[in-house]
Amino acid sequence: MINVLAEKIKKLNAPIVVGLDPMLGYVPEHIQKKSFAEFGETLEGAADAIWQFNKEIVDNVYDLIPAVKPQIAMYEQFGIEGLKAYQKTIEYCKSKGLVVIGDVKRGDIGSTSAAYATGHLGKVKVGSKEYSLFDEDFATVNPYLGSDGVKPFIDVCKQEKKGIFILVKTSNPSSGEFQDRIIDGRPLYEWVGEKVAEWGLDHMGDSYSYVGAVVGATYPEMGKILRKVMPKSFILVPGYGAQGGKAKDLAPYFNEDGLGAIVNSSRGIIAAYKQEKYARFGAENFGEASRAAVIDMIEDIASIF
Amino acid sequence: MINVLAEKIKKLNAPIVVGLDPMLGYVPEHIQKKSFAEFGETLEGAADAIWQFNKEIVDNVYDLIPAVKPQIAMYEQFGIEGLKAYQKTIEYCKSKGLVVIGDVKRGDIGSTSAAYATGHLGKVKVGSKEYSLFDEDFATVNPYLGSDGVKPFIDVCKQEKKGIFILVKTSNPSSGEFQDRIIDGRPLYEWVGEKVAEWGLDHMGDSYSYVGAVVGATYPEMGKILRKVMPKSFILVPGYGAQGGKAKDLAPYFNEDGLGAIVNSSRGIIAAYKQEKYARFGAENFGEASRAAVIDMIEDIASIF
Repeated sequence: MINVLAEKIKKLNAPIVVGLDPMLGYVPEHIQKKSFAEFGETLEGAADAIWQFNKEIVDNVYDLIPAVKPQIAMYEQFGIEGLKAYQKTIEYCKSKGLVVIGDVKRGDIGSTSAAYATGHLGKVKVGSKEYSLFDEDFATVNPYLGSDGVKPFIDVCKQEKKGIFILVKTSNPSSGEFQDRIIDGRPLYEWVGEKVAEWGLDHMGDSYSYVGAVVGATYPEMGKILRKVMPKSFILVPGYGAQGGKAKDLAPYFNEDGLGAIVNSSRGIIAAYKQEKYARFGAENFGEASRAAVIDMIEDIASIF
Repeated sequence: MINVLAEKIKKLNAPIVVGLDPMLGYVPEHIQKKSFAEFGETLEGAADAIWQFNKEIVDNVYDLIPAVKPQIAMYEQFGIEGLKAYQKTIEYCKSKGLVVIGDVKRGDIGSTSAAYATGHLGKVKVGSKEYSLFDEDFATVNPYLGSDGVKPFIDVCKQEKKGIFILVKTSNPSSGEFQDRIIDGRPLYEWVGEKVAEWGLDHMGDSYSYVGAVVGATYPEMGKILRKVMPKSFILVPGYGAQGGKAKDLAPYFNEDGLGAIVNSSRGIIAAYKQEKYARFGAENFGEASRAAVIDMIEDIASIF
């Protein structure tokens, strides 16, 4: 799957991923109205609204991008109905040929991580049958519990030819509280990055490992160092756009082959119609606004090279 | 809710929590057969089997214990159907008067943590309506992203009078890889523990904070230090029993009032019927085996004081 991702990025010349993180506040009035008319102001109604919203965005951008990254929290906040919309979104994106990165940030002790890995990337056995569950292509993983929290994910990834992105340096303002603390002369995120590189050797694709890393766009100096620490890992880069990361700062996240990083934008794309820049489309044509924002983002990122 | 938990522990003289982490392999043959006969070897069948299993255990132990801790990964591995069983388990446990600690180990950047907090502890707004979702009383939270990943949980906890347990030192063998690394002369887990104490002051109950910590039973020396670092935080202690932690090692996790810690056992209770010690009950009476194991655990923990 990492080979597929790299191939798609090259073909589309678009090292970008659209974050499908649908807050209900992003969903235009007319979509909400329609869903509420059908299902009432219920969880089912909310889930339908975010699914219709996602679908229209995907329909408008799927030919331009290699991948999407749905943030499961935005669905989990609507409980079971929300998680059904998460699953439906994944299935639909895959049917459109998109690589799906489940931003689930799971991580636990061994047997529990194995259960998460099964639920998101693997297959579960029920008697003599086997079932795929959420079935993302990649998942994000939290490293705080160390190797035995991560390895069960890698085991499932090997079976399924899927991958993970491990949180190394996150994009949020307080990420430094623990991640930047100095251990034997180097910050914690570097030590985590080194482990990512080590774990990655255990599950290599053609040029890149199936074990990638998350490094926020908001910390380019650290991105530069981490690029060197993990030469074979794809870096998933959140924090571009709405969170303040700029394209010119992202050069160090890429390798010389122009690969090795994939930049995420969520709000900046899915709620583009709310920006002055794309206001001309109007809320009715929010999907077209998202398409215009994707085109602009691809151009912006291309300016790096 | 932290006051309720402390009250219940005192009343029952049982600072313990039963981990409802139902692997399908723990569910006795006769339960699986019945569920598969009704629903087939499907995800619905698996979910029904773990729900029936949970229900029988809860029916046998609810009067002895203050709280349960369902591990969501064990349900999530069966996808949507599994998560329905998770929700049903929570509802049932609450109807039996049990405090429910959702072992979800969520944690993300601010707005995303807010969504998780809503899904697990809060209420979501849909138009003019509000809905509770999974509605656990407590949730476990991963601290790797720092304050702005944790505070949205605390905000929801304040509204709902609920609480969280933050991972400080986990029970697994590789927990030391990052958690034990030395920063300015002290291990990372101590720095996290200090933050827990600080965050906790912001949301205090009568004697204890609504912000607790997870510290594994497998590292008693560290438990001793962390008890002092976080005097007002309840410590949720996994790793007793099956993972190797012993009662005699757990004294330092408690305060002088006999409170401040709650010891979890999962496998040791829910799969008790598989142990030689409780084999006399037979798989048919697995619930009674669990009850006997709970009584033994309470006695074992009482030997500390």
